[in-house]
Amino acid sequence: MLDLKGKKIILASASPRRQNLLKGLDIDFTIEVRPTDEHFPEKLQREAIPEFLAKQKAAQFTDLDDNTIIITSDTIVWINDHVMNKPENFAEAKQMLQTISGQMHEVFTAVCLTTKGKQRVFSVVSKVYFKTLEEGEIDYYLANYKPLDKAGSYGIQEWIGYIGIEKIDGSYFNVMGLPLKELYEELSVF
Amino acid sequence: MLDLKGKKIILASASPRRQNLLKGLDIDFTIEVRPTDEHFPEKLQREAIPEFLAKQKAAQFTDLDDNTIIITSDTIVWINDHVMNKPENFAEAKQMLQTISGQMHEVFTAVCLTTKGKQRVFSVVSKVYFKTLEEGEIDYYLANYKPLDKAGSYGIQEWIGYIGIEKIDGSYFNVMGLPLKELYEELSVF
Repeated sequence: MLDLKGKKIILASASPRRQNLLKGLDIDFTIEVRPTDEHFPEKLQREAIPEFLAKQKAAQFTDLDDNTIIITSDTIVWINDHVMNKPENFAEAKQMLQTISGQMHEVFTAVCLTTKGKQRVFSVVSKVYFKTLEEGEIDYYLANYKPLDKAGSYGIQEWIGYIGIEKIDGSYFNVMGLPLKELYEELSVF
Repeated sequence: MLDLKGKKIILASASPRRQNLLKGLDIDFTIEVRPTDEHFPEKLQREAIPEFLAKQKAAQFTDLDDNTIIITSDTIVWINDHVMNKPENFAEAKQMLQTISGQMHEVFTAVCLTTKGKQRVFSVVSKVYFKTLEEGEIDYYLANYKPLDKAGSYGIQEWIGYIGIEKIDGSYFNVMGLPLKELYEELSVF
């Protein structure tokens, strides 16, 4: 359906969630991930952080041809005026889930489309409202799932998302890691 | 995590979507579907329709013991003061998608928990806002997906949901067919 005018798509993400979401747009793509330093300037806030990182990931592709679009992206959790990254260990994951419990937080996903001569960066925000989680619920999730590779220590498409989320304002897929409707629109006009 | 006090759970639904969602709550269950007449009184509106049908589905289980909870449910789409069921054919599916295009509609899912001596029915509403779909997008979806087994002729977890939905107010899982957070809470106190 999406007319890419013969262009090849490369998704530069190791995330199986992002790979599955992009498949849902019914486009052909390959996957190629290049190591990227994920530090960012401390003064950056909110969507400026994932936009910076998505561009950093794109900057690793210095050998592009005119016929290829690289898709890079990054997702952060923003809560209490701070960014919440992936946890270093289970103790930090537990702290993060205790912070998220009973509060609203924002999830920003930035996407960067890059060809040899052109770049477009955009980002989408979703507000996620968690119920107050019982300590037993947090401990159960930490013991049975894999929080360490996830910003904010949770996966919305896992048990804790099913039982814990009161509501979401905005895109569910954006919280999973790719704002599909916006990506489809941006690819249509890129 | 969910303490069912030794009770067995039977999910009375043939929908693979509902079966997968219930698995997400990390509870053991079996599946048993009994044929049910899905007609309902014409005067019923909104959540009264799926609540009636969820109870009808439960009423087929006349041989319950004290130790078993039957979960039945039903989902409808409500738009322009009318219910939108599953389409009879592709022409009707196209009409439904043209109606949904560019509008908000409501999705009601009712769930009925039944034991030998007790019954609890509840329902959850989600508001779904579709962008204006191009005819080519509708035709592409009809040609490549299976709209005929879905209320309102679309699956939110399919291409048309990815590219077409502006936003959802309420639960994404409710639109898929089971309001998981509410079901978890109701099972906790049933």
